Amino acid sequence: MKEFIYFDNAATTYPKSERVYRAIEEANRHLAVNAGRGSYRLAKKAASVIEETRKNILKLAKAEEVAEVVFTPSATLACNQVLGGLFWKKENTVYVTPYEHNAVMRVLHLLQQQYGFQIEELAIIPETLQLDMEKIKYQFGKRPPNVVVMSQVSNVTGYIVPWEEIAREAQKYEPVVIMDGSQGFGLVPVQLKNTPVDFYIFAGHKTLYGPLGVGGYINNRGKTLKHLLAGGTGSDSLNLQMSEDTAGYEPGSHNIVAIAGLLEATREILEKETSVKEELLQQGELNKEKLQQEKMKKDKLQLQELWQKKFQQDLRREQELRQYLEEKLSKIPGVILYLGKCEQEKESIVKERAVEERTGIVPMNIEGYKAADVGMVLDEDYNIAVRTGYHCAPLIHKYLKDEDYAGVVRISLGKFNTKEEIDYLVKAVEEIAMGW
Amino acid sequence: MKEFIYFDNAATTYPKSERVYRAIEEANRHLAVNAGRGSYRLAKKAASVIEETRKNILKLAKAEEVAEVVFTPSATLACNQVLGGLFWKKENTVYVTPYEHNAVMRVLHLLQQQYGFQIEELAIIPETLQLDMEKIKYQFGKRPPNVVVMSQVSNVTGYIVPWEEIAREAQKYEPVVIMDGSQGFGLVPVQLKNTPVDFYIFAGHKTLYGPLGVGGYINNRGKTLKHLLAGGTGSDSLNLQMSEDTAGYEPGSHNIVAIAGLLEATREILEKETSVKEELLQQGELNKEKLQQEKMKKDKLQLQELWQKKFQQDLRREQELRQYLEEKLSKIPGVILYLGKCEQEKESIVKERAVEERTGIVPMNIEGYKAADVGMVLDEDYNIAVRTGYHCAPLIHKYLKDEDYAGVVRISLGKFNTKEEIDYLVKAVEEIAMGW
Repeated sequence: MKEFIYFDNAATTYPKSERVYRAIEEANRHLAVNAGRGSYRLAKKAASVIEETRKNILKLAKAEEVAEVVFTPSATLACNQVLGGLFWKKENTVYVTPYEHNAVMRVLHLLQQQYGFQIEELAIIPETLQLDMEKIKYQFGKRPPNVVVMSQVSNVTGYIVPWEEIAREAQKYEPVVIMDGSQGFGLVPVQLKNTPVDFYIFAGHKTLYGPLGVGGYINNRGKTLKHLLAGGTGSDSLNLQMSEDTAGYEPGSHNIVAIAGLLEATREILEKETSVKEELLQQGELNKEKLQQEKMKKDKLQLQELWQKKFQQDLRREQELRQYLEEKLSKIPGVILYLGKCEQEKESIVKERAVEERTGIVPMNIEGYKAADVGMVLDEDYNIAVRTGYHCAPLIHKYLKDEDYAGVVRISLGKFNTKEEIDYLVKAVEEIAMGW
Repeated sequence: MKEFIYFDNAATTYPKSERVYRAIEEANRHLAVNAGRGSYRLAKKAASVIEETRKNILKLAKAEEVAEVVFTPSATLACNQVLGGLFWKKENTVYVTPYEHNAVMRVLHLLQQQYGFQIEELAIIPETLQLDMEKIKYQFGKRPPNVVVMSQVSNVTGYIVPWEEIAREAQKYEPVVIMDGSQGFGLVPVQLKNTPVDFYIFAGHKTLYGPLGVGGYINNRGKTLKHLLAGGTGSDSLNLQMSEDTAGYEPGSHNIVAIAGLLEATREILEKETSVKEELLQQGELNKEKLQQEKMKKDKLQLQELWQKKFQQDLRREQELRQYLEEKLSKIPGVILYLGKCEQEKESIVKERAVEERTGIVPMNIEGYKAADVGMVLDEDYNIAVRTGYHCAPLIHKYLKDEDYAGVVRISLGKFNTKEEIDYLVKAVEEIAMGW
């Protein structure tokens, strides 16, 4: 049997870069104390690691000047704090995409029981599983949004939600706009500056390739949240009221070990951005002199476009691998591909779609097998890890129509997967589908 | 200058055992995937690490048969989930000790704004800073408790709260009894079996000598909590309602890396227990044959007592070191010891007290210096880490009367501190007090 092959990157990216592992180990052994500014030097060093990580997160998200980062132990906690921190009223309407994860949907469900607001799903085109902008405009007009929550990327299909378009469309009704970037941040570029997104939620252990134990949110435009949680913050101890600054939303000891790992992960991504920029300058694709003249807005824009295009190397590689996988899978009789190129027309919802519209996630099934059974055989007979079932995404399955299979087999690629691994997976799927 | 000496163990114990570091590194590199029973083998292995850790936590706490462990990212989160999960009514009264941390007090303050209940402080004897059992009985009689929250150990003075006595006293009013074991679990023995404690909160990174990023609570007697938080749990994805089982209180990806570290830490403590037991059996202090006869209750009790006494090796060592430190400090003119032996009678609240009543925490000040200034000099001139200020404990300072010093210098010992380190600290304090 082949050595372990990992295709569950949408749950947790694995492995991480060696430099990230080393940063975690180093922090664990030499920095794992309680961070604090007004304290001894090691605690100050821990505090400075946290501050540098905040800066890198803001830089990566190209956030507003006023934006602030709040760290939480996970993206789930961030969803709870952001959604639970809104000033809900009974008459409110919150719109969600059908791609939302239970980190959003169950939190909204819990809050709905308390406040009684209305939850509406943004329309999608059932045939293509794309969001339906025309219908969404109509929805907003008929029942104006007070809150809009959008996954940046679906954890089931890899669909990149047209968040900017939706956010701009919603803008005229002045809702609170929340984006769940768990499946995208660090891989799919965002630019929060000059876009009407209020809160951008992220997970350290997914597309950022950092460790478990840290996530958070960017408060992009300085909106105030109620405190859902309370606790010690290491300052103003005699005051029982949680403060309104960042610290007031981060009760308890910071997980400095996880944050140090995340810092290294963000450094790696930012360094890649910088090197792409330098390469472009060297190649003459960018004009250095003009670039330095801050006032020449047009060239800056040109830089940005080029840069973003080139910067998406990891994303492009993942998309190419996905396309390669889908092409191979599409040729296996009995394989149901819910998206992507598929020769079994009757089984396919979509025949052909833009490669750029999705990340490296492939939902599939094999006729005659429950999704879980395919997963079990892949694991036990081939040492291949995929995830099967509903993937904590409660809404999208009515459009996937995967109930007979009890969900889908999700193959989720990461930056360390190779073509060889995909070939081996395809062979395994073929053998299962053939009933060998 | 000497190499770094760490006396901030009450914030985070540091360092940890080599075996704990190794377990974390191993998990980080080879197990950091999403735990799940119905999934591939590595995910199942991660799930089994979590289950084994739960068992060890219950074993260490000698909890009830029905008891269950809920993991949270921190003790602060556990306080939020437990206190926020109670079915509060406006007419309720919650009693707290004056030793509570802001992880309890700020959470209660936040909940009080929502529900309007009454918060009462349990009486202490101002001269000795011990809880006043006579007055407490009277308090309970006059205004019966609906909820009682007790720190197991004060993070400012190291005082071991007589929690069993208070819990039994409260019992007749049938309140929910919550114990915050953050500063005690793993060091100060507890036996939750047959005691009226409902929820026992713990922190992985303190006296358990595990990593940051994991804490939790033991639901000792099967009481139901409301859900404060929601999110994905990896099961029953299409159901928006959080489940009532353990998983329903653990939304989001488990921090398997931190839990694997905690597992190793609990193993180390439990192994020590076992070896003490074996030693006692070998020395003939215990009668093995009788011991094996389960029905001979009397001997089992004898074993328990002996065992507990001997098992407290780490605690006794810490207490002896503390006594050694306090004796030395008490001889330095200008040093204010708030507890423990103290030659400067006028400055001392307590002259002499049972060594066993406190763990290895020493609050102190030096006449003429703010606490923070002492901390700064210890750090910068002596490379000694202590913590200064109010230590997130908002209530106790009115009894310590430390406002002129803006809190206390807290020297908190851990199992890796040595007499030599204490001698060096004493020398440093002496030099500061002398104005050198």
